[in-house]
Amino acid sequence: MFKVIGLDADDTLWENEIFYRRGRKLFNHLLSSYPVDVDVETFVHNLEIQNLDTYGYGAAGFVLSLIEAADALTKSRFSSKDTVRLIDHLKVMLSTKVQLLEGASGLVATLAEMHRLVLITKGDLRHQRLKVDDSGLAGYFERVEIVSEKSPDVYSRIIADCGIDPGDFLMVGNSLRSDILPVLEIDAWAIYVPNELTWSHETLEDLPLHEPRFAEAATLNDVPGLVEALEAQDE
Amino acid sequence: MFKVIGLDADDTLWENEIFYRRGRKLFNHLLSSYPVDVDVETFVHNLEIQNLDTYGYGAAGFVLSLIEAADALTKSRFSSKDTVRLIDHLKVMLSTKVQLLEGASGLVATLAEMHRLVLITKGDLRHQRLKVDDSGLAGYFERVEIVSEKSPDVYSRIIADCGIDPGDFLMVGNSLRSDILPVLEIDAWAIYVPNELTWSHETLEDLPLHEPRFAEAATLNDVPGLVEALEAQDE
Repeated sequence: MFKVIGLDADDTLWENEIFYRRGRKLFNHLLSSYPVDVDVETFVHNLEIQNLDTYGYGAAGFVLSLIEAADALTKSRFSSKDTVRLIDHLKVMLSTKVQLLEGASGLVATLAEMHRLVLITKGDLRHQRLKVDDSGLAGYFERVEIVSEKSPDVYSRIIADCGIDPGDFLMVGNSLRSDILPVLEIDAWAIYVPNELTWSHETLEDLPLHEPRFAEAATLNDVPGLVEALEAQDE
Repeated sequence: MFKVIGLDADDTLWENEIFYRRGRKLFNHLLSSYPVDVDVETFVHNLEIQNLDTYGYGAAGFVLSLIEAADALTKSRFSSKDTVRLIDHLKVMLSTKVQLLEGASGLVATLAEMHRLVLITKGDLRHQRLKVDDSGLAGYFERVEIVSEKSPDVYSRIIADCGIDPGDFLMVGNSLRSDILPVLEIDAWAIYVPNELTWSHETLEDLPLHEPRFAEAATLNDVPGLVEALEAQDE
């Protein structure tokens, strides 16, 4: 039996990327009033990745990158009013109520019956904390770990804080880059639950299908069965 | 003897507010090219406080508030170029090397000889983590707690995680609002080290001089002596 199960939050338990998509849509709409002669999507994507080191993950850095991109793409003609519309969208993102994904609430309740649970999420500290509180699920988790990067070292530290070995830890999440690969790297276990709205930065081409400590769930409802299957395999 | 000593970081161990002052100075300079008929400082301060609930503490929220204020104060005439100059200042803030305050390094080393130390700082997760790593002091701390708000509940949780009672915990910091009052409220101990550059939001009119578990240090160098004095008083 796994002693602790870690769960990712954004786009695993609740909607997240959808609010970024809306921000990009607003951005494209605002930009359509200006003459722009380069590929907007590529330009914005590259700037976002470039700024990740400075801003980290989260809505504020995303919108700051959009504002910076708007200046560059419009040759400094982007209006102050349009900038404020992007800031207003950020405020909406930061204050929007959590929208749980289908099956999330039931999954957490089911897993909590037999396992200690830890929520492990990356991004803005305050925003993530508000979402955890708003989700109504906080009571199921013995720890909530909000981290700036999900590296093997970070997972090792969390697992040590739980007082267990990596072999007794399972992670569930929608990002191969953040929830699956670093966990497998330290010889813990992982279940991947794909979400169609995962940000391209978090996706990878190949699934680690050769890994015996890995499984893929089609939906959140399939996770408890896969947990049992992996536990049986571990015996 | 105190079992654990908590230390604040921004403006207690290293410079912080000075970079906000520089941001305000740049903002005033940029704004001087536009006709503005209201009191800029008051307007910006009120907007910052109003936005705290949305952005939390940290450099990104600060600069987003400046951009929003610039639009309002210039009646939407603030140029895209000037907006990017504010964003550039944010990037400088987020990437500036830590500048330790005089005596900080020696204080931490001295306290670590006899006590378990915890760094407790609020603000942006990634930025604070980078500053801790850059400070060269991380090795002295058994825990680094980056929190979004320093409330009595948050201190209680950290003290419980350390496995001690509030009466065995002492906090050292420059903010009466964040480092001193919430700590005294849960019957732990506190040493206040004033910094002339503390943000007005963090200051209060009255020192809790009637509190027996409180002391004020003129400089960081006075802290170890005050720790001993409070410990003697506790016996």
